[in-house]
Amino acid sequence: MQFEIKAIFFDVFGTLVDWRTSIAREAREILEPLGYKLDWPAFADAWRAEYQPAMEQVRSGKIAFCKLDVLHMHNLEQILPRFKVGKLDDATKQNLNLAWHRLDAWPDTSAGLKRLKRKFMIAPVSNGNISLMVALARRNDLPWDAILGSEIAGDFKPKPRVYLSACEAFDLEPSQCMMAAAHPNDLAAAAACGLRTGYIARPNEKGRPAEYAAPKERFDVSADDVEALAQKLGV
Amino acid sequence: MQFEIKAIFFDVFGTLVDWRTSIAREAREILEPLGYKLDWPAFADAWRAEYQPAMEQVRSGKIAFCKLDVLHMHNLEQILPRFKVGKLDDATKQNLNLAWHRLDAWPDTSAGLKRLKRKFMIAPVSNGNISLMVALARRNDLPWDAILGSEIAGDFKPKPRVYLSACEAFDLEPSQCMMAAAHPNDLAAAAACGLRTGYIARPNEKGRPAEYAAPKERFDVSADDVEALAQKLGV
Repeated sequence: MQFEIKAIFFDVFGTLVDWRTSIAREAREILEPLGYKLDWPAFADAWRAEYQPAMEQVRSGKIAFCKLDVLHMHNLEQILPRFKVGKLDDATKQNLNLAWHRLDAWPDTSAGLKRLKRKFMIAPVSNGNISLMVALARRNDLPWDAILGSEIAGDFKPKPRVYLSACEAFDLEPSQCMMAAAHPNDLAAAAACGLRTGYIARPNEKGRPAEYAAPKERFDVSADDVEALAQKLGV
Repeated sequence: MQFEIKAIFFDVFGTLVDWRTSIAREAREILEPLGYKLDWPAFADAWRAEYQPAMEQVRSGKIAFCKLDVLHMHNLEQILPRFKVGKLDDATKQNLNLAWHRLDAWPDTSAGLKRLKRKFMIAPVSNGNISLMVALARRNDLPWDAILGSEIAGDFKPKPRVYLSACEAFDLEPSQCMMAAAHPNDLAAAAACGLRTGYIARPNEKGRPAEYAAPKERFDVSADDVEALAQKLGV
């Protein structure tokens, strides 16, 4: 290895948890008993499609920073009419919005993080808020040292402040930290801040594994899952 | 129980870890080989005595918020001459300052937190910075859900913002949260923000157990240690 790192920061949605299958399941469990029969994965995709545009309002300074939960609710209200879902009561909408707190991890995530924690400090550096990260950690046994990311930084990835605030919280230089993610743009933004990069392949994130192609970009490490990342980093 | 809580926030120095014995030991291990023979517990006490005055500079707005590590270094530089410790090189001073990252927990702390975590979200709400909290957690096996406290709030206890930012991070009302501490003033400040209070007796914190007297203030729960707190909260 040409470098030495002390901490690994993880993207969460897609990289550590399978948001698409989980949101489809949660939406179905809540809406089907109310008489709705939707294309559930399409509903998950539509909700997720509003994610970047909503965060861009904050990144651009158009609206003030708020928790991702708040943006998720706003986005939910955008897509419900498109799926012909009528007015839901507040408790149901709240419960549906908290589907993002009930995502399941990929099968390798917990074991891989436990291995990595033996040698490295580990933290999520996600756009999700702290309570959402805590809920996912408790559900999926993710042994974080701390919850870093957007709520600490007051902005959303890929803004540099998010990566840099995580390094600062651990008293580390960016070069002593690795960002691990399934998304090349996240890694490119981290690399621009001086962090090392670990690519984790998640061909199933969007439910179309046949369309998956390995990225052309180069990363410091590439691995097929979190356990493989631990292996490659000598843990 | 007349109340229902979902999260417990913990004071750390004194409540969960024995700073006095640990600082005395660390200072001795670093300074004795350099030829210094000090009253090590008195050195620990003197360092700790600078703690509140230094934070007060921030709380009063006189200086900008900074990590407790920075204040600890400033305080160390104040007390070294008093103990006739000559100019230490930077690496030694840094290492000595990081003694606060190497404090030992009281014997009941880890087991008690593990019990409480089964039922409650748990986080430190300490004036220590995130990296310090992470170091103590790794050293002493403290299973935090998240690291909250001064660095999240940008201010020091007992300022209300520190307690309230912790509740907000967990999406909870203050009445759904308990502050647990060995220090009545910390609990009084938390109660003024609407949090529940859990007193943990640490008669040995200052090394003078014979002088310890149970506080006269009333708390929602009082316990002899963290395991006893878990017991009283039905875990």
